[in-house]
Amino acid sequence: MEPVVKANPRFKPEGKRAATSTKTPGLKGRQLARFQQERTRLNELVTKYAGRGIKRFYSIDAQVYQPGALPAKTKEMLGLVASVVLRCDDCIKYHLINCHQQRVTSAELDEALAIAMTVGGSITIPHIRRAFEAWDELSGNRG
Amino acid sequence: MEPVVKANPRFKPEGKRAATSTKTPGLKGRQLARFQQERTRLNELVTKYAGRGIKRFYSIDAQVYQPGALPAKTKEMLGLVASVVLRCDDCIKYHLINCHQQRVTSAELDEALAIAMTVGGSITIPHIRRAFEAWDELSGNRG
Amino acid sequence: MEPVVKANPRFKPEGKRAATSTKTPGLKGRQLARFQQERTRLNELVTKYAGRGIKRFYSIDAQVYQPGALPAKTKEMLGLVASVVLRCDDCIKYHLINCHQQRVTSAELDEALAIAMTVGGSITIPHIRRAFEAWDELSGNRG
Amino acid sequence: MEPVVKANPRFKPEGKRAATSTKTPGLKGRQLARFQQERTRLNELVTKYAGRGIKRFYSIDAQVYQPGALPAKTKEMLGLVASVVLRCDDCIKYHLINCHQQRVTSAELDEALAIAMTVGGSITIPHIRRAFEAWDELSGNRG
Amino acid sequence: MEPVVKANPRFKPEGKRAATSTKTPGLKGRQLARFQQERTRLNELVTKYAGRGIKRFYSIDAQVYQPGALPAKTKEMLGLVASVVLRCDDCIKYHLINCHQQRVTSAELDEALAIAMTVGGSITIPHIRRAFEAWDELSGNRG
Amino acid sequence: MEPVVKANPRFKPEGKRAATSTKTPGLKGRQLARFQQERTRLNELVTKYAGRGIKRFYSIDAQVYQPGALPAKTKEMLGLVASVVLRCDDCIKYHLINCHQQRVTSAELDEALAIAMTVGGSITIPHIRRAFEAWDELSGNRG
Repeated sequence: MEPVVKANPRFKPEGKRAATSTKTPGLKGRQLARFQQERTRLNELVTKYAGRGIKRFYSIDAQVYQPGALPAKTKEMLGLVASVVLRCDDCIKYHLINCHQQRVTSAELDEALAIAMTVGGSITIPHIRRAFEAWDELSGNRG
Repeated sequence: MEPVVKANPRFKPEGKRAATSTKTPGLKGRQLARFQQERTRLNELVTKYAGRGIKRFYSIDAQVYQPGALPAKTKEMLGLVASVVLRCDDCIKYHLINCHQQRVTSAELDEALAIAMTVGGSITIPHIRRAFEAWDELSGNRG
Repeated sequence: MEPVVKANPRFKPEGKRAATSTKTPGLKGRQLARFQQERTRLNELVTKYAGRGIKRFYSIDAQVYQPGALPAKTKEMLGLVASVVLRCDDCIKYHLINCHQQRVTSAELDEALAIAMTVGGSITIPHIRRAFEAWDELSGNRG
Repeated sequence: MEPVVKANPRFKPEGKRAATSTKTPGLKGRQLARFQQERTRLNELVTKYAGRGIKRFYSIDAQVYQPGALPAKTKEMLGLVASVVLRCDDCIKYHLINCHQQRVTSAELDEALAIAMTVGGSITIPHIRRAFEAWDELSGNRG
Repeated sequence: MEPVVKANPRFKPEGKRAATSTKTPGLKGRQLARFQQERTRLNELVTKYAGRGIKRFYSIDAQVYQPGALPAKTKEMLGLVASVVLRCDDCIKYHLINCHQQRVTSAELDEALAIAMTVGGSITIPHIRRAFEAWDELSGNRG
Repeated sequence: MEPVVKANPRFKPEGKRAATSTKTPGLKGRQLARFQQERTRLNELVTKYAGRGIKRFYSIDAQVYQPGALPAKTKEMLGLVASVVLRCDDCIKYHLINCHQQRVTSAELDEALAIAMTVGGSITIPHIRRAFEAWDELSGNRG
């Protein structure tokens, strides 16, 4: 059965996945907390207007990152690199929070972003700069 | 003859098309009003520097949305979906204002955005969130 | 319940939607027939390897074009314009076949493509050239 | 007044601009000749279906590359680099032919493509490979 | 020191990396063998024209996929997903060959492509179809 | 030898290239000064986390704009047009500052942006509006 939107972590940041994110050790900075709040507020607006098509899309979007043949950590890095080469700052922040929660190390992050920068080119540099800023906050350096 | 920029609705939000937009019933919120003002201010700068190429492009850009074999309402939805899959927030807001003015309903908007999300993928989600926020304002819920 | 892939028109071109397409009056040319056969052959390969995530995505992709608040004809034009600005020839052909089946006229197509060209720029021109070639075949001029 | 399509070099490869291209010294190879013929054939189909919007766009597209404050040679290189980072093989070939005609040297081409590769990333590599192949043909090495 | 192009696996498919690819167990099919030959032929043309900028880019492009904090297998999947969402068939084939060589399983591939399809949308479907076709050949089903 | 990041103008805005930019005659406005400071602050964060791959990429990115067969002025315009069609505001500002420093005139800028708008379509308009705003500031009109 289709998960209803209310039970979907994409719509409910107070659900399992996002809740963990907001409690993740280093998430002390203000910028990412504001990002999460804004995301929650806007998802409630989506819930107000979205019909079956958009709700099912949100459901798939939550499902494909669940651990399976590939661990969740690898999947979040795949989502991150895809978001960097397509240059979506909000998507990058979302996957960085999940990568941090999945115990991706700074060295692993650097190598993943080096691939993203090489594939996507210098046009990704401003996004990668902001990605390292968010990572620095996640790592507890902006408490 | 080429419409001069001064007579072009793209350059003059006080012209027929944009004027209607700023008077559209639900356009009471602050965010979209600021968006319109900023757009007007920047278009004046474009007028200051733009030569014949850019001015003619603006002219075409106004022309292709005029009603013809397809009604203006359909054309604005085409412009909206194109803007969503190319992920341009300013373009999305511009077409949302025009869609609202053309009496697109919330149900129609939801279905158009469901197609955009499906074609363009989850990378469009942050833009669609902001689209529904603007739509909510247009619908009079932020007066 | 989730439609299984076997019952999904996206996977089975011999299903309702695609079948109609291959019988559409003007579809006499060789190029589009080959395109349909190749698409069927490759979708069978997708079925061989695809898990739940990809199958559910195919299911949504079929659903969002079903008539609802917006008629199927408008939805196919939305899919077409999205495909042109994202510059995917296969997607363009797929939606052109469906547009033809939904009785989109040549004048309507011209206006939809004019919007796509304006939004997406001259980089879309090679794709629009090939779109008109496919349309000419659909219109019975290459039988 | 709007140039009619018949007088527009984009539609008529037998017009001034394209004609020069087909006579350009090194253009002896088969691949680029076929490219030009196919482009002419398809543009005739565009002429058959295109209304005022598409025709005016073609007209602008021809105009912006005319020499002005910037020489035609620089403009063709701008068009080439834009086409590489947006990854459109047909557009790349078109501008390579014009670059060759404008006496762009191989060293200049290499530097322009190095910028395109850096901005656009490794995803441009397959297109740059094919660009050098076309350039090699233009340079007379495939006569 | 900068690796010279001659010693760079990106330029020399007879080098370590590519050689392994052409000997990879399942690589019996004709399509991927032709792809490799064409790639080698065109890289030789790049070598003929490329200056220091392009050669250094090729060098980085080889380096970032070397095993480090992340294993080569994960890195190739990152390159694959980035290539799918940016919709480059040649890049997809290249990384599929390397994924196969790194012992990525069909189940892992399916999950990686489900993420790519979700992030990139239905516009990636034609590329994912062709990806599964290449994978089927790599898996020895077209020998 | 690989230039170390500390000696790289991309990382050190107090280095030759960026320093000149901050002293460029018209650069009196507040917006671009803030842009430069933010860029410096974030590049320091990149230096903190970046490994060899990202550092080498930054190095290439600085190198390809050095004068060679093409003058620096042409190269900055190539970088600008590539940034416009890929729609990256930060990249556009960066190249506008360098174009201003290389004595690109307003007429030349207008023609380069007309090409970018034509190739990239109306989706580039919001970025071109902001480009002219930055140019107006660079030209001393916002001192």
